[in-house]
Amino acid sequence: MSASVTAPVRVALDVMGGDNAPAETVSGAVQAAREYGMGVYLVGREEVIRAELAKHDTTGLDLPIIHTDEVIEMDEHPANAVRRKKNASMILALQQVRDGAALGAVSAGNSGAMMAASLFTLKRIPGVDRPALGGIFPTKEGACLVIDMGANTDCKPEYLQQFALMGSIYMERIFKISSPRIGLLANGEEESKGNQQVIDAHHLLKASAGTLGLNFVGNVEGRDIPTGEVNVVVCDGFVGNVVLKLSEGLAETLLGLIREQMTSTFVNKLAAAVLRPSLRKVFKRLDYAEYGGVPLLGVNGSAIISHGRSNAKAIKNALRVARQTAETGVAGAIAEGLSKLNSPEEVEKQQQAQSHSN
Amino acid sequence: MSASVTAPVRVALDVMGGDNAPAETVSGAVQAAREYGMGVYLVGREEVIRAELAKHDTTGLDLPIIHTDEVIEMDEHPANAVRRKKNASMILALQQVRDGAALGAVSAGNSGAMMAASLFTLKRIPGVDRPALGGIFPTKEGACLVIDMGANTDCKPEYLQQFALMGSIYMERIFKISSPRIGLLANGEEESKGNQQVIDAHHLLKASAGTLGLNFVGNVEGRDIPTGEVNVVVCDGFVGNVVLKLSEGLAETLLGLIREQMTSTFVNKLAAAVLRPSLRKVFKRLDYAEYGGVPLLGVNGSAIISHGRSNAKAIKNALRVARQTAETGVAGAIAEGLSKLNSPEEVEKQQQAQSHSN
Repeated sequence: MSASVTAPVRVALDVMGGDNAPAETVSGAVQAAREYGMGVYLVGREEVIRAELAKHDTTGLDLPIIHTDEVIEMDEHPANAVRRKKNASMILALQQVRDGAALGAVSAGNSGAMMAASLFTLKRIPGVDRPALGGIFPTKEGACLVIDMGANTDCKPEYLQQFALMGSIYMERIFKISSPRIGLLANGEEESKGNQQVIDAHHLLKASAGTLGLNFVGNVEGRDIPTGEVNVVVCDGFVGNVVLKLSEGLAETLLGLIREQMTSTFVNKLAAAVLRPSLRKVFKRLDYAEYGGVPLLGVNGSAIISHGRSNAKAIKNALRVARQTAETGVAGAIAEGLSKLNSPEEVEKQQQAQSHSN
Repeated sequence: MSASVTAPVRVALDVMGGDNAPAETVSGAVQAAREYGMGVYLVGREEVIRAELAKHDTTGLDLPIIHTDEVIEMDEHPANAVRRKKNASMILALQQVRDGAALGAVSAGNSGAMMAASLFTLKRIPGVDRPALGGIFPTKEGACLVIDMGANTDCKPEYLQQFALMGSIYMERIFKISSPRIGLLANGEEESKGNQQVIDAHHLLKASAGTLGLNFVGNVEGRDIPTGEVNVVVCDGFVGNVVLKLSEGLAETLLGLIREQMTSTFVNKLAAAVLRPSLRKVFKRLDYAEYGGVPLLGVNGSAIISHGRSNAKAIKNALRVARQTAETGVAGAIAEGLSKLNSPEEVEKQQQAQSHSN
């Protein structure tokens, strides 16, 4: 049984990445191996990994170690670090994907470096101008993918068009939503709303939705993200980052104010104790760890960037998502979708849409 | 006693504007007249206003009516409506300000039309390229002004520089914050972060902060709005609108989820009843009505745009803010501040900052 005839069944984990590494990363890998019956390459300092593994019962689990001494630290300059540390744990993890030994790679380390290393190691899918981060936001009844969440600050309308396709494929395959509803983030629902970039992207998306098989519902507003009006929200990485950070800050501040009142008096504390199990359901909905990590979409392979503060549960879920992203063929579907934009008729239609909007 | 020697002591209210007009607008005016001892011009259909006034005790209150039959509806095209309906209630209200008969104007009607009418009637302050909306966001311990909240979708760096000055003057004079902390909204705190527009604006603000007397603290992230890191957050109107709508949607969704759990069982309902008075304090902090309305900064006069859903309390507070904006000389201070940018040395410094960032 050689590697060339058997598809890899492991995901590569950068054990050294994240504020809670290596304890939580190793613990997450052990949980994923047990719960999902998957293999995990543990990439990092062997003696450190062995010490952590010793704390768990790993009988029968597929957890091979790939040793390296190099680690990219959280505060290093991403591009410089990736260039200098060729054997860094996150880079070796990505190389397993490139070489077909792993289905996907996960890191909770320096996210800028993980993005740069993914791009450098896995390369872009043909037709993709800019890979993008797809962040999962909990909504009233489910989840919404906001793409781009911070990889590209200045975007051309064509990038947003590609983000829409990548996001739609991801939500369809990972969240099992058929024909995901796609909205373009703007300052009003009317087609005429938006800055110039968004107005142009709207025309492009409208013209190509049929060809790309996209369920483009038009412009949406900020309030439509938490209410779950759509499954995919398309925006540039500058706006996406503001959306992410504002949501985190607002939820924290609001829950903090409520918690303050709930513990302000003895009687309030008693009442709060009664409500705690129910409220926990709400807090669980808001827990990023449930979603594991953020996919970098548009690279040739499955790369998941986990939150720096990831705990074992977040790592476990990220490993699962990395495997699913590979097994459901997200990258291949993106390549296939974008190839449809290259026919002569389609190119002409796109150009008309662009001139129409100028 | 002629109008030319006595400063006007009234604010003009578009009684017909808003989803809850005229009942709530008239009620808000009556409350403002009584609580603040101010006069209010009630602009709109006389018989409608008289019918509403009859429901209140208005003894001794200064509530003169300015009659007009024309009203701009919520769904009319702003620019067209302003051009066509020259005697619309919101336009007559603004004309009182222009003519020195009123300190300020308030409308909860068609906000696009109110913006266009304010610009058309009051004109821009010399040195202001684009008037902007300053939205008040409740924070952990106070309030933060986000400017621009939606008036200008595509902004040049100089516009953002002017927004910073206008926002700072407003927070200093209306919220009594000395030397307000000003942040530029970006996707990271480092000076190198941001899209090109923000990077350029950062250089401009840094170079001119001394001259303008601004306490510019640099870039801030979305999370710094609710936590109250700064008193003024500068962004373009596209991003500002996303921030506003996302905040509204998120707070509503989150509080809805919590409310759902609190009423899910009989025991939970009892516990929630105990907590209600304390939680009400939190909800009050989030109530837009407390802040009354959004000033359009950069026009020659005090114009307040209130939420379409304004109740009497919101109108009352908007009338107070309109008066304060005039009495504290916000428009004059903006003109004076911007004139400082016109000295030959300052113009050169600005140009250097701009070339530096290219």
